[in-house]
Amino acid sequence: MAATNFLYDLRDAKFVLKEWLDLEKLLSYPAFKDYYSVDDVDSFLDVAYKIARDVVAPANEDSDKIGARFIDGKVVTPDSFKQVYKTCMEAELGPQIADREAEGHLPWTIYAPMLEMIIGASAAIPTYWGLTAGAAGVIQKYASPELKKRFLPKMFSGEWGGTMNLTEPGAGSDVGAVTTKAYPTDTPGLYKIKGTKMFITAGDHDIAENFIHLVLARIEGAREGTAGLSLFIVPKIWVNEDGSLGEWNDVTTVGIEHKMGLKGSATCTLSYGENNNCYGWLIGDPPGEDGKGQGMKQMFTMMNEERLNTGLLALGVMAVACYNAIAYSKERIQGTKLTNPKGPKVRIIEHEDVRRMLLLQKSVVEACRALLFKTYYYVDLAHESPDPEEREYAHNMFMLNNPLCKAYTSDMAWLMCGEAIQTYGGYGFIEEYPVAQLARDVKIFSIWEGTNYIQALDLVARKFPMGGGKYLMAWMKEISSFIEENKNTPGFEKEFQMLADCYADYQAILGQLNKFLGEGKIEMMPLYATRILHATAMIYCGKLMLEQGLIADKKLKELGEDHYDASFYKGKMATAKFYVMNVVPQVTAIRKMIEAADATAIEVPEEALGNF
Amino acid sequence: MAATNFLYDLRDAKFVLKEWLDLEKLLSYPAFKDYYSVDDVDSFLDVAYKIARDVVAPANEDSDKIGARFIDGKVVTPDSFKQVYKTCMEAELGPQIADREAEGHLPWTIYAPMLEMIIGASAAIPTYWGLTAGAAGVIQKYASPELKKRFLPKMFSGEWGGTMNLTEPGAGSDVGAVTTKAYPTDTPGLYKIKGTKMFITAGDHDIAENFIHLVLARIEGAREGTAGLSLFIVPKIWVNEDGSLGEWNDVTTVGIEHKMGLKGSATCTLSYGENNNCYGWLIGDPPGEDGKGQGMKQMFTMMNEERLNTGLLALGVMAVACYNAIAYSKERIQGTKLTNPKGPKVRIIEHEDVRRMLLLQKSVVEACRALLFKTYYYVDLAHESPDPEEREYAHNMFMLNNPLCKAYTSDMAWLMCGEAIQTYGGYGFIEEYPVAQLARDVKIFSIWEGTNYIQALDLVARKFPMGGGKYLMAWMKEISSFIEENKNTPGFEKEFQMLADCYADYQAILGQLNKFLGEGKIEMMPLYATRILHATAMIYCGKLMLEQGLIADKKLKELGEDHYDASFYKGKMATAKFYVMNVVPQVTAIRKMIEAADATAIEVPEEALGNF
Repeated sequence: MAATNFLYDLRDAKFVLKEWLDLEKLLSYPAFKDYYSVDDVDSFLDVAYKIARDVVAPANEDSDKIGARFIDGKVVTPDSFKQVYKTCMEAELGPQIADREAEGHLPWTIYAPMLEMIIGASAAIPTYWGLTAGAAGVIQKYASPELKKRFLPKMFSGEWGGTMNLTEPGAGSDVGAVTTKAYPTDTPGLYKIKGTKMFITAGDHDIAENFIHLVLARIEGAREGTAGLSLFIVPKIWVNEDGSLGEWNDVTTVGIEHKMGLKGSATCTLSYGENNNCYGWLIGDPPGEDGKGQGMKQMFTMMNEERLNTGLLALGVMAVACYNAIAYSKERIQGTKLTNPKGPKVRIIEHEDVRRMLLLQKSVVEACRALLFKTYYYVDLAHESPDPEEREYAHNMFMLNNPLCKAYTSDMAWLMCGEAIQTYGGYGFIEEYPVAQLARDVKIFSIWEGTNYIQALDLVARKFPMGGGKYLMAWMKEISSFIEENKNTPGFEKEFQMLADCYADYQAILGQLNKFLGEGKIEMMPLYATRILHATAMIYCGKLMLEQGLIADKKLKELGEDHYDASFYKGKMATAKFYVMNVVPQVTAIRKMIEAADATAIEVPEEALGNF
Repeated sequence: MAATNFLYDLRDAKFVLKEWLDLEKLLSYPAFKDYYSVDDVDSFLDVAYKIARDVVAPANEDSDKIGARFIDGKVVTPDSFKQVYKTCMEAELGPQIADREAEGHLPWTIYAPMLEMIIGASAAIPTYWGLTAGAAGVIQKYASPELKKRFLPKMFSGEWGGTMNLTEPGAGSDVGAVTTKAYPTDTPGLYKIKGTKMFITAGDHDIAENFIHLVLARIEGAREGTAGLSLFIVPKIWVNEDGSLGEWNDVTTVGIEHKMGLKGSATCTLSYGENNNCYGWLIGDPPGEDGKGQGMKQMFTMMNEERLNTGLLALGVMAVACYNAIAYSKERIQGTKLTNPKGPKVRIIEHEDVRRMLLLQKSVVEACRALLFKTYYYVDLAHESPDPEEREYAHNMFMLNNPLCKAYTSDMAWLMCGEAIQTYGGYGFIEEYPVAQLARDVKIFSIWEGTNYIQALDLVARKFPMGGGKYLMAWMKEISSFIEENKNTPGFEKEFQMLADCYADYQAILGQLNKFLGEGKIEMMPLYATRILHATAMIYCGKLMLEQGLIADKKLKELGEDHYDASFYKGKMATAKFYVMNVVPQVTAIRKMIEAADATAIEVPEEALGNF
């Protein structure tokens, strides 16, 4: 029993890609058709699985036990990380994925399960290239051809790391409070940078040769708030026009955080321009007369995809916790069956409550995977579809689903890792077993890339009203039509009835939200936003799971009970049904709460919360 | 900002004891009337508060950073622990509480908040005497006068530690699988002991001079299973008849566990009789011809109270997390109000979703505190009431509530510590702030002293049917009568309506459980037991909170808005209302699930869960 028990359900990932999502359509689009076919999925996933298991997972213990350290002003990662990183770059598991201009670039839909496996093997490790991909994507999309040429090749190759610098000591969720300043120089586009950024994931380390920081800063004279921010490319070591390295660019690593988990990932505080000698290139144009910068819009391109990736990080960790809990339950012998107390001692997987915990974990994992992979699929469609209408629809479905992907998955991950610990009993609390670390690692994902409340507010205040509400309507229509069309499917009547009931509850939740807004009770929106997000995710995941369940049912009937794959399809039907019957009904409770419209939390005077 | 931020709501504890529970009645009973009055509560609690804050809390960092270590076969605790322990013993915060035969012994009802504070200051520290109290209680109740005289004085004084030895590598939840053996010697009552026990909390350390282990073992020839077990007093160092110490009794500490949290508490593996030279005294009588031992019954006396204390451990930790989250929210400035985006930056306590998180934490803390302290009150009544009917009723209410106290509180603690981390944002994940450690510390309490599933099964399979169901009926009658009598209270109409609705849902849950049993679907009971326990706890806590809310309402009206205590009563009304309107409605979802009677988790073939 080691702390590096990488386990993964390859079969489920392949089912999602090859049997549920219409990958064939995606791969018929110009960017992919000469390079990939559905038949390639297996080999891509199999290779990633082997790398995750044989290369990445063995470094996971170092990630937690040694962790990233700050020694003499330098960030030192465990020795094992270097080879792991190199192998992942060679296998093109790294930031290459962000190069959408490259011939034959891989669709995110295929990359997502590959990355999920790497995450599951050791979640800290892909943080060393995850933001590089994001930063490179922003540069590719918004920077001048000259800057792209200067920075991108070594970012895509992983030789240089890329980072995302928003947070400052006084500016976390409130990005508009950023105080980092940029001062024009005589060279157009070149600015002097001064400020301190914190919580910078992989902001410095000994794996990459250089760091290309994307830094949100305010150019002298620009507006206050987020609108006045611009985005800068700030290398740690200066990069000359020909791509060669120059002098140190006055970017100092002040320290790293001591965290509850994800210890292998260096969370840095960076100081820019302590010696007034730090320079950065502006991306796009400086603020015009209105004082508005382009930084937030540019950063959001990156942030949107990083939010989806954060969902994947949470999924990757909780999936491994779930699979370890299943594996452990099959081995651990304890007690007799309640229904046969005189019978033999059984493995705990035979106990009803353990079954409940395992199905809960497995169904939530598969529901979140369905949600995430479908959303990655939308990302690919949004970029690669030749049909502008399809691109637009897919983009907006991505925008709608994205806060669910980030927040629902990471909220569930804390609970499901708790269930995994519970499944192990006392051993779950012991660090020699894998689940304690997974629980510690996973908690950050509900916080970074915008706390889950920010996701909830994004959902109800920005995404619901997109296009005058038409995308939300279309999204809901997908659910209601699906129920209408399939509700009489033999063997699924109860599940469709439950989903239909809960869908009605969900409609009532949205009705109540509109009622609040109609009455001018704006404050009720943030008060209930988190619960609305959960209800939204559950109703949608319920639909996705039943879609998968129906496919599994059909396949099982075609193949017959004796087929070697029958077990998988039975499992899929079980998780689909379990999720709808045991998770989705929480929507009903949320309806009850929101309709009761209790505003105590807002109305209670602050001093009544206690004198602490 | 230190990792030792002890904060406590003394006012709430005093409210519970002095304004809600009928402490006057309890203190009028013979054991207490010459010693304590309600007026003494303040000074007891104030002293414990000062010790918790000034003596215990400063050692909490050592507890986590240094922890208990195993060096050269010895368990070494942080240096700071020794003085803390000594001070707590001198202040009679230790195992003295278990001496129910002592003149002027303190009621548990008053001790519980004192212990809660010590726990909140550093949860690992009271584990060094918590089991001593339990073990001493068993010895006092069941052992011969001679053994009592030999062992108890130095246990009650804290000079010797006491422990509870059930678990073995292959016998955790399945206590009946214990393989530790006891062999009779020529001395009546004296047995040779051989076996290995694990997960023994404070099983060895450098604070106490000796250890008095209570060891469950099977006497040669006794039955299999729990029925065949006997309980032995096994000192680490032999104790002579006159109470002086003799030779080492062949009890070896094999090692300690490396845990996710509660690192200051030594979790030991102990080996008894490696040299065939370990002896123990049987408590009570050896198995008769039927092969039945008295060990489990004796151990359960201890276990029942330890389960309640485990609830208190979980409460103590989550309460401190909650109070720190409130304090932090009052200081941390971030963003503007959603309803006033152009307004000034505000402290996060002004944000609606932060309010929701804080009220959720605070209401769950106060609900669990109400549940626990009421149950401690029942324990006192059960021991000290001169009225046998009252004793019997109180004992059975204790028995019914106990699994709720243990399991609901510890399940909630994981979630609420997660909410506390979330309230802190990124800083919540950083170990320099207090909440990460609290989350790590708290997870064990859902596992030890019987996993929460064991509690759930205990509730539905043992406690519900007690006395042919008459105690459950009485317990429910308390709720329904309360609703009936108070439902028209002005200002609480919505809350009583909600509680009444959810109570009807709860009745339906019990109806469905009976239906399952009537149809012989025994397996549905364990499948839904955990959810039934949660519903049971929520409906009961809803009632307790509204009881408190009504008192607060009355007091507030008496004292007026300008009274210095008005804020407290407003806060109490708010948490009572919030809990009923935002937590209790989950009962409705549980009803929906159980009535849907989904049995997928049981029916799915094991291999369909995946090939891990």
